[in-house]
Order: sequence, then structure tokens, then C-alpha cells
Amino acid sequence: MAALTNGIPEKTIERLSEYRRTLLASHKQGITHIFSHVLAGIHGITAVQVRRDLMLIGFSSDTKKGYDVQVLIEYIGNILDSPAPTNIAVLGMGHLGQAITKYFNGKGLKLRITAAFDIDPEKVGKTIDGIPCYHMDAFEETVEDKEISIVIVSSPTKVAPQLVVPIINAGIKGVLNFTSTPLNFPQGIVVENYDITTLLEKVAYFVKENEENNTTGNG
Amino acid sequence: MAALTNGIPEKTIERLSEYRRTLLASHKQGITHIFSHVLAGIHGITAVQVRRDLMLIGFSSDTKKGYDVQVLIEYIGNILDSPAPTNIAVLGMGHLGQAITKYFNGKGLKLRITAAFDIDPEKVGKTIDGIPCYHMDAFEETVEDKEISIVIVSSPTKVAPQLVVPIINAGIKGVLNFTSTPLNFPQGIVVENYDITTLLEKVAYFVKENEENNTTGNG
Repeated sequence: MAALTNGIPEKTIERLSEYRRTLLASHKQGITHIFSHVLAGIHGITAVQVRRDLMLIGFSSDTKKGYDVQVLIEYIGNILDSPAPTNIAVLGMGHLGQAITKYFNGKGLKLRITAAFDIDPEKVGKTIDGIPCYHMDAFEETVEDKEISIVIVSSPTKVAPQLVVPIINAGIKGVLNFTSTPLNFPQGIVVENYDITTLLEKVAYFVKENEENNTTGNG
Repeated sequence: MAALTNGIPEKTIERLSEYRRTLLASHKQGITHIFSHVLAGIHGITAVQVRRDLMLIGFSSDTKKGYDVQVLIEYIGNILDSPAPTNIAVLGMGHLGQAITKYFNGKGLKLRITAAFDIDPEKVGKTIDGIPCYHMDAFEETVEDKEISIVIVSSPTKVAPQLVVPIINAGIKGVLNFTSTPLNFPQGIVVENYDITTLLEKVAYFVKENEENNTTGNG
């Protein structure tokens, strides 16, 4: 993560996003207040952690009734969201690209996928799940036209390194990379590399550790 | 993350997985030695970080030639991998499930996706990208038969909470959850929740922060 954090840790930002999603779901169900320990329970963390995260963004609440759900949603929104909607493009409309697009469609988020890019003639020029798919050759001009500031890289891993220069040239500000190749960008462009293999190897490692600890514990 | 770490931080585990992938690619290209600063450059971190991570697992190297690629691959493997291959099932063979399956196929990893589960009659009973797809009703017995220890949850978000009890009953040890609902499990089951919305909101937040910092800097 290349960005400065203004004092809010990366993990807190992640949790704020997660809290908000839970709060939005609670709000839909007509819940007006929620206690920190309830929010904590849903996310598998401690109430102290929830309170610490919210204190970091300057939010305090009437503890007798819990947090006001709607107020907290707006408060987190002021931290996380840009004033204007953020336009996002998906680079690579294979299974992963389509999964991401489908997932975001109609969620009414401030983040909007507004374009997809591919080189497959079967996809280019079509509208897939409501998102127009352009040829990669039109990347720079489309980014400018559509005021796209973030891209999701869901191309085949082999192709990913070739996307770095077009991404820089187009003036993209943030990259979420799901391929197996870590991508590096100059300072000023935010990058998150999330390789599925790594996530899975991490789970597998901690499973192994758990088993070893249990064996030691029983022996 | 519910597991104990035996002193190796979660982030180091992630990076070890990433280093190994780079080392495997280097090995394929015939590279026998690699310097910490080269490895660091590929991953967009400092050489100090690389050396610290490898020191944590007790690996040191001849700094004149750099790290021996093959030896380091094996060394990291001893830390991350179980002695036996780990069998994984995918729950939900929509776009995301298929993207994950395709991605892992034929990679020759110690982690193997050996089964998929769905309830769609179009998918159940078929082999998709080389992986047999079973009905969710057969989950417990298939997990036992195929010695599956880890599941990837790529179902629709609405369905995810219904999967918790079957996962517990089947004796699954680790869960990688890609849906928007955080899933909680009893102690002893490792869970990683990776919501794509959160990853994207995080990138968007740091892009916003960068822009605000730049504006302040110029003003």
C-alpha cells in the first residue's frame, strides 16, 4: 500500500467498510440501534476493537441504546467515500471479471463499475451484465471520457504486466490486482495485490498450525 | 483470524507465499540465485522487509550471490505446506467459483481443488474444468470420502449463512469466504473473510487520501 493513511490504519479502513455493510443490512431490517458487542459478534472480533475503530474516526455513542445505525452509516460514509461517485473499470472479462461485475451490479454503492475491457472479439462491443465492454485499444480515451479513476485487474496472469503502462498513461489512481503477478506502480498510484493462491495458502498454513498446536496440547 | 501463529505474523505468511510464487517463476526461467533487493523490488517492498521475513523463519543466505532460489523454495515450502496435499472444495460454482477453479487447475500446487458443490441442476453431476460438481446434499459424505479440509465459499451472499452448519458438521478446518456476509465459526476452524467490496473501498479510500494530501501539498 503506497498511500499515506492520515493516521487511520489499513485494517481499520477494512473494518469500517465491513461494519458499514452490516449496518446497511441492519438498517434494511428496520434496526435503529446496535451495540458494539453485537457488531463485534457479527464480525468475529471484540467489542473493544469495534469501539477503538470508531473512536479513531471520532465517533462516540449513547451506550445505553447502542450506536444509532443510520448516523453511523453516514459517519463512516464521510470517512470512506469520495463526494462524487467513483468510476471503476474491469480489465479482463473472464469468469473473475464477470463475477466481480455481477456482484457489484445494482448494489447502489458509491463505487460504480462503468466499463469493462477485453480483447476477445466475443466480448468487445457487447454489454455484459449491464456493463459495456470495450477493446483494450480504447482504454485511454474511454478512461478519460468516463472519468474512471480505479481499475480492477482480472486478466490472465500472463497479460497483467502488459497492463501497467496503459494504466499509468491513462492516469488511473488506484489498482486492485487479482492476478498472480504483483504489479508495481509509481508513487501516487495506490495498488492492492490480492492473489487467491496467497489467501488460500494462508488459510492452509493456519489450519496446519492449529493441528500442530492441538497435537502438542493432547500429547 | 482465529488461529495462533507460533510467532510468525500473518503478513509474513502472506509474503512468504508471494515470494515463493516469484521464486518458482524465477526457477522456471533458469535463475539460480536472487538478491533480497531484487525480490523486494518485484513485490514493491524494501529489502529489509524481505530479509526480516526470511530471518523470522530462520533462513539466511550467502549475500555475495544472493539467496539460492531452489533451496529457498523448499525452505518456504517446509513452513507453509502440509506434508500431505491439502484437498479443497469450492462451494458455489457461479462465475467466481469457476474463476477460482480455473485459476488453480494444473498449477501443480500442494493445494488441490478436488470437488465443487452447487444446487443448480445444470451443474450438479457434471465435471466443470476438470472438477466434479456435487449436490450440496452430498457435502458431508463427499468431504469425508475425499478428505477435504478447506472450503472456498463462493456462493451467492444470501446463501452463505446456511453453509455454516454443514461446514462445521463436515469437520472442515479452514474457510476462505468471498461473500459479503462475514461468517463465524467455533474456535479451531480458521476463517478468512475477503469481501471484494471491502478491498475496493479500501483502494478508493487511499486514492481519496492521496488526492487530499496532494491538494494540501500544492495549496
